[in-house]
Amino acid sequence: MPSGAVRQAIRCVSSSLHSTTLRAQTTMAAAMPDPLPVRQKTPLVTEVGKEPPGPAMKTNVPGRESLRLKAELDKIQNTDAVHFFVDYANSRGNYVVDVDGNIMLDVFTQIASLPLGYNHPKLIAKMSNPDNMVTFINRPALGSFPPADLVDKIRGTLMTVAPPGLQHVQTMACGSCSIEHGQKAMFMAYMRRERGGKPPTAEDLETSISGQAPGCPKLSIMSFNGAFHGRGMGALACSHAKWFHKLDFPVPDWPMAPFPKLRYPLEDFVRENEQEEQFCLEQVEDLFETYRQKGAPVVGIMCEPVQAEGGDNHASPAFFQGLQDIAAKNNGYLLLDEVQTGCGVSGKFWAHEHFNLREAPDVVTFAKKMLTGGFYYKQEQKATEAYRIYNTWMGDPSKIMMLEEVLNVVHQNDLVNNAADVGQFLLQGLLDLQKLYPGTMKNARGLGTLVAVDFPTTAFRNSVVITLRNKGVNAGTCGEAAMRLRPSLIFTKSHASVFLTYLEATLKDLIPGRKV
Amino acid sequence: MPSGAVRQAIRCVSSSLHSTTLRAQTTMAAAMPDPLPVRQKTPLVTEVGKEPPGPAMKTNVPGRESLRLKAELDKIQNTDAVHFFVDYANSRGNYVVDVDGNIMLDVFTQIASLPLGYNHPKLIAKMSNPDNMVTFINRPALGSFPPADLVDKIRGTLMTVAPPGLQHVQTMACGSCSIEHGQKAMFMAYMRRERGGKPPTAEDLETSISGQAPGCPKLSIMSFNGAFHGRGMGALACSHAKWFHKLDFPVPDWPMAPFPKLRYPLEDFVRENEQEEQFCLEQVEDLFETYRQKGAPVVGIMCEPVQAEGGDNHASPAFFQGLQDIAAKNNGYLLLDEVQTGCGVSGKFWAHEHFNLREAPDVVTFAKKMLTGGFYYKQEQKATEAYRIYNTWMGDPSKIMMLEEVLNVVHQNDLVNNAADVGQFLLQGLLDLQKLYPGTMKNARGLGTLVAVDFPTTAFRNSVVITLRNKGVNAGTCGEAAMRLRPSLIFTKSHASVFLTYLEATLKDLIPGRKV
Repeated sequence: MPSGAVRQAIRCVSSSLHSTTLRAQTTMAAAMPDPLPVRQKTPLVTEVGKEPPGPAMKTNVPGRESLRLKAELDKIQNTDAVHFFVDYANSRGNYVVDVDGNIMLDVFTQIASLPLGYNHPKLIAKMSNPDNMVTFINRPALGSFPPADLVDKIRGTLMTVAPPGLQHVQTMACGSCSIEHGQKAMFMAYMRRERGGKPPTAEDLETSISGQAPGCPKLSIMSFNGAFHGRGMGALACSHAKWFHKLDFPVPDWPMAPFPKLRYPLEDFVRENEQEEQFCLEQVEDLFETYRQKGAPVVGIMCEPVQAEGGDNHASPAFFQGLQDIAAKNNGYLLLDEVQTGCGVSGKFWAHEHFNLREAPDVVTFAKKMLTGGFYYKQEQKATEAYRIYNTWMGDPSKIMMLEEVLNVVHQNDLVNNAADVGQFLLQGLLDLQKLYPGTMKNARGLGTLVAVDFPTTAFRNSVVITLRNKGVNAGTCGEAAMRLRPSLIFTKSHASVFLTYLEATLKDLIPGRKV
Repeated sequence: MPSGAVRQAIRCVSSSLHSTTLRAQTTMAAAMPDPLPVRQKTPLVTEVGKEPPGPAMKTNVPGRESLRLKAELDKIQNTDAVHFFVDYANSRGNYVVDVDGNIMLDVFTQIASLPLGYNHPKLIAKMSNPDNMVTFINRPALGSFPPADLVDKIRGTLMTVAPPGLQHVQTMACGSCSIEHGQKAMFMAYMRRERGGKPPTAEDLETSISGQAPGCPKLSIMSFNGAFHGRGMGALACSHAKWFHKLDFPVPDWPMAPFPKLRYPLEDFVRENEQEEQFCLEQVEDLFETYRQKGAPVVGIMCEPVQAEGGDNHASPAFFQGLQDIAAKNNGYLLLDEVQTGCGVSGKFWAHEHFNLREAPDVVTFAKKMLTGGFYYKQEQKATEAYRIYNTWMGDPSKIMMLEEVLNVVHQNDLVNNAADVGQFLLQGLLDLQKLYPGTMKNARGLGTLVAVDFPTTAFRNSVVITLRNKGVNAGTCGEAAMRLRPSLIFTKSHASVFLTYLEATLKDLIPGRKV
């Protein structure tokens, strides 16, 4: 990794930035055609064509027009989570343009949900084909009246990238629904096995109507402290990241296990981290027993390959192997939630492919960059009766159609390997900055472009992200004090260099002692 | 209502149908240019332009190609709920075309989810406008990075048809999510009131992470036997219609009240039905107390204006007025789930507008024909903190864009009044058939085009629907033995006449004594 070069590049640009005022900086940034030493251009740059040369800011963010629109929207709904209003028509590639004309490098990309950045020409071409229009106009009730080309489309998209070992897939409208139905697939498989092949009894069927046992048995799913899986009641029961997700909402009493808190740099804490993971695995094992005794047996474990919302918390392949073994030993299943980690961002198409599991997870959920929600599953989790995994829309073929083009581009431009390379570059850049600014940034970590770094406090992290945005880079947050990077798949090392440059400029702004 | 004319039309066509074999019938049906006496053409007919003159069948349904595709799809997911595969490109207006070339009048329209039938020219025009493309390609994280035109689009669409008295709306991706978030809006409002304006305590925030009280308090929502609200855990906890919705799935213990079982014809059972509704309301009142004592107070009542999935069960305005009063008396809210009953099908834009409620319901959910999911709500249900009602997508602006055109057409063609007229005509036709076939069809009922009729048994109902489909009319089912009609908003009396004609031919086929 060219860490020296990165550092030099960062120094080169940031030295010309840090002594000016914020407004002056951003104006200058706007004028910067290419502030970094020339890097090897990848074919991606031509793909996104008209991408701006760099950030260019006219106002702080949110600017006046964003604030005006926010006040208007607030008459209709709570807008406290609105960051800024976007001019989608003028956003390009990795650059988002807001309604005040600010051009920002976007390393958060709609909460990790834009696979190819903004207005990718291949997606425009796909949309411009009149043959594809029918798919947008006639949304089917997919489970009962599927379109003629559904089998071909699923085979040509979702099945080409299915996690190794999983041959079944069900689309859903969003991530939360994917989770809830993935959970139900596990409950069904578990109870089918419990019944030993016998059909449900009349009492089972009858009691299920009112939601009582035995038809609706007391069962549970284990999840982890720091997890986030979505916003329906079943998804929330497995989410333990932030108070505002669940406060005031009743959820069932399901087991919450500790997720490993790894210490960084990993190479300095090998033994401690092994012990930490071992401790967590023991808790997982204990919780199976605890909830068996409580009369709410655990049918499966649900886990993110990287806990995103909870703070970009990673664990080792050994930990996930352990989860799979403990689940199996307890007749439970393993659901890996790849809503945020799938679609190539980890440097493999699915993050769990890094874990060398002895067999596929039983269920793998997806959404975000996949454009459609859904979940892969094993034969054992396949429904054996009609209308068990079902709703009116069950996804949207127009999203599968767009996914088809996304996967073409991913394949043609080798974007999964790009994510591995760029992620490594990005992480090394953060590690370098960490050394330059000890006590300010720590725990830089990543898997592909799923990269994050911690700051000393929540307040400082927030200042970093706001200052960075006002300079022209839109990043995300997660956990208590982490900055989360979720760039698109067309993010290159050039973009990464811009990010690192602006981040260092931000740090210099915020650390008084380092301002000269 | 021209019930005599309908009857005559039905007799005229069906007499030429009933003596031939099924295959011969369908071939003949295909050749029928317009089997009915000419009716006044509405402007709608020109709108849908190329709509076929009538059903035209080549095979039974599902035909060979549907069966082949079903077998292929079954390798990927359970397909027991698949009726047939659709050739969406060749479907037009109220006519769905399957992959075997069968042309069917569609009175179910993708489980009530197509507002303007298939390939409506105005929607094609909307899609063909290159300016609209950007909305399809760049799906935002709507709660944080909304598009520049979001406020205008919501004002120009959802707010123009907001239920009287409701000034707030939140879009969601699907019906289930709309329900779950609508429930959460009630839980939040309830607990905010319980806290008496004080902020949540540190203990509230902390315990919410693990899902324990007091942060996640034991609260409940009351729903009705026969209800169906969706497939997430919170929605399922309020659904009590069919065993396959909930069997094997744990759900919280929430109160289920009886829904009135009205006797028909209503005019003959005025007193009995009043008593029945009074009984149900008393149970509702009691359940508030029961669950207060159980330590899981009811924050609100959730109800469909017409129970659809559960059997098209209607109740009187007085019943819904009673629900609202009892809810208020018990400090609870009222959520009306208009996912299936909204968007004009009832003859008013929202079915609850028939109920003369003394004030607006607190929450009104929608999806299906509205193209986007979502819910309207009062100021009291508006979140007061960021990220409470939130997820990555929170709906999809491309659906709002299509809704804009749908509402234009609804307005220009007076489709809400059309639903009232056509619904009345359809219902009268069923009432007439009921008289002609006593003991075979009963309880014809309707509100706008939300029309249904019961058959003596589940098996007979199924035979009717299958035979009818093989003749060229695709209808739905619900409850134990009901046929459910959910035509599009561009369904005219001409289409209704075709339906009635084919239904009578079906009845004649299935009642041996009436075959000559």
